[in-house]
Amino acid sequence: MNFRDAPIRGLDVVAAQQCKAILDAKTKPRNSLGQLESLACTLAGIRRAAIPDLGKAVMVVMAADHGVAANGVSAYPSEVTAQMILNFARGGAAINVLARQAGAELLVVDVGVAHPVPFGPGVRDCRVGKGTRDMSVEPAMSAAELEQAISAGFALANELADSGVAVVGLGEMGIGNTTAAAALVAGLTGADVDTVVGPGTGVDDAGRARKKEVVARALALHAQTIGFPRQLLAALGGFEIAGLVGLILGSAHRGMVVLCDGYITGAAALAAVALRPEARDYLVAAHQSSEPGHRIVLESLKLQPLLSLSLRLGEGTGAALALPLLQSVVRILSEMATFESAGVSDTGAGVS
Amino acid sequence: MNFRDAPIRGLDVVAAQQCKAILDAKTKPRNSLGQLESLACTLAGIRRAAIPDLGKAVMVVMAADHGVAANGVSAYPSEVTAQMILNFARGGAAINVLARQAGAELLVVDVGVAHPVPFGPGVRDCRVGKGTRDMSVEPAMSAAELEQAISAGFALANELADSGVAVVGLGEMGIGNTTAAAALVAGLTGADVDTVVGPGTGVDDAGRARKKEVVARALALHAQTIGFPRQLLAALGGFEIAGLVGLILGSAHRGMVVLCDGYITGAAALAAVALRPEARDYLVAAHQSSEPGHRIVLESLKLQPLLSLSLRLGEGTGAALALPLLQSVVRILSEMATFESAGVSDTGAGVS
Repeated sequence: MNFRDAPIRGLDVVAAQQCKAILDAKTKPRNSLGQLESLACTLAGIRRAAIPDLGKAVMVVMAADHGVAANGVSAYPSEVTAQMILNFARGGAAINVLARQAGAELLVVDVGVAHPVPFGPGVRDCRVGKGTRDMSVEPAMSAAELEQAISAGFALANELADSGVAVVGLGEMGIGNTTAAAALVAGLTGADVDTVVGPGTGVDDAGRARKKEVVARALALHAQTIGFPRQLLAALGGFEIAGLVGLILGSAHRGMVVLCDGYITGAAALAAVALRPEARDYLVAAHQSSEPGHRIVLESLKLQPLLSLSLRLGEGTGAALALPLLQSVVRILSEMATFESAGVSDTGAGVS
Repeated sequence: MNFRDAPIRGLDVVAAQQCKAILDAKTKPRNSLGQLESLACTLAGIRRAAIPDLGKAVMVVMAADHGVAANGVSAYPSEVTAQMILNFARGGAAINVLARQAGAELLVVDVGVAHPVPFGPGVRDCRVGKGTRDMSVEPAMSAAELEQAISAGFALANELADSGVAVVGLGEMGIGNTTAAAALVAGLTGADVDTVVGPGTGVDDAGRARKKEVVARALALHAQTIGFPRQLLAALGGFEIAGLVGLILGSAHRGMVVLCDGYITGAAALAAVALRPEARDYLVAAHQSSEPGHRIVLESLKLQPLLSLSLRLGEGTGAALALPLLQSVVRILSEMATFESAGVSDTGAGVS
């Protein structure tokens, strides 16, 4: 079973309908939990149960370096990718704190940083190479490297499903990866370079102009890959982005909820859906980031974000912050009284 | 000490600045936690510590009935107010579930329901009367009743502060209370009746037209109270709304964070700030509800909501859903590594 032909089932429509009926019987005006009610139905459809079992939640942070970073497109040097993996391993990064707060496990995967060190326990070695090549002068990776990275993510999804995980939060770390994400989003959606390139970790105006120029150059160089998602992903992607694509496809195949984070995980989701459109229904958008291209990603995937807090940290932080909303609505389903059980007069108000 | 002259201190600007400096030293691009960073600084200013102590969080649900409900302005009969208090007491309502999920205590206060029953433990008796009178034909309450309700809320805030509470989540229950809130918001902000009257629990178009007509009639009848917040609150308010006003003022006096919920608690916050403008800085807006007038409230108070999920349930549910965001950002302050402690290269990116 691999990411190309592993079956991905349509959502369980009956479970979603039963979920809505359960919500409608609870002691509250119909639909008064707004977006959380449609979230509940999506979770029911994914988990194939009217009251979905969210089992364990795991935040997966995939990390890799990017050859394109040599063009001065990031506010930080590539060394920071490995330094941040060490920070993850020691529990000191934002995603460590927010995963703890949300009661989620954290799994860090080195898919190919440029300057690896002995990271120690808690960091999975799935290294494809010492970072990608510079997409603005050659394809970021070979077909074989792409296959290896996607397959690693796909295998990880299967392993997580086997251990009782129901929610996979997507996270990433990789200096230069908003540049790769911008190129992918432009290549996959046809959006203009101006609209997909943002400040990332915080480049200044000159840096952003450089970033736009680099993305435009990469898109021109690899124009023949447009319309061929795998080739496009190899030309413009990153090892961590390809790993996330495999993780998304494997999670959809195994019926797990995929909780997307910001711009880079969104670009990975776009690429995954370009490869396997059936995977789209397994996506939940945790938030809309302040990176301007993220809106294009969410609109293209027809996803409504749960949070909109101008976050632009990455690592999966937005996904971890949104996770309690998923847990909350499932508790609503299982713990709230009904009009009948509580003896509250029901007028059926709010049915629409 | 009473709500009229109890001192309300300005926020601790130094603590807020120190909080920002702590955030800027953490291993993340500057300002990359977006709205959560300004939230952190607000919490630091309120709690007067760079890393604020959020102590205990309590959700306070104030409940009362409204004479104006006799005009068919709600989708539910007044009996539901008392039925829902029983539901709260038994743990079956949405706010029970969401307070549990957020790790907050729940305190229910009967400020004057029309059909009281022996509610049992967990429901505080602060009854001012059997619900307000119909504001569309006479003042909803007397000056003495208003004083009693506000004072009850103010006393409760002092009691909560004495027991180590740092965050007071506002909730309410009262059939007809979006009508009272609409009249208050129009009276306090000058907004047009059309813009402040929404569907509430879910009235149909005819019900909404009736609701507008009733609010317009009440505003015309009590036009002489415009510009006199206490008189306005007595004419158009509810016992639970007046109780919330006292709770807000007492919480500001005692330096607790006031986490507002939806339209009714927002109207109470507007009234509290009209009485004591210094109280405004103690408010945090948990969410923007789907009730159209709520946007007017938030704009008038210059508050940016944390969530926007089209909620319209009330009870404090939005406040409970947002509470983990407050807890999260305080953990970020206390648990995250700094660039220096983690050995991560700092370029100062994102300073703005």
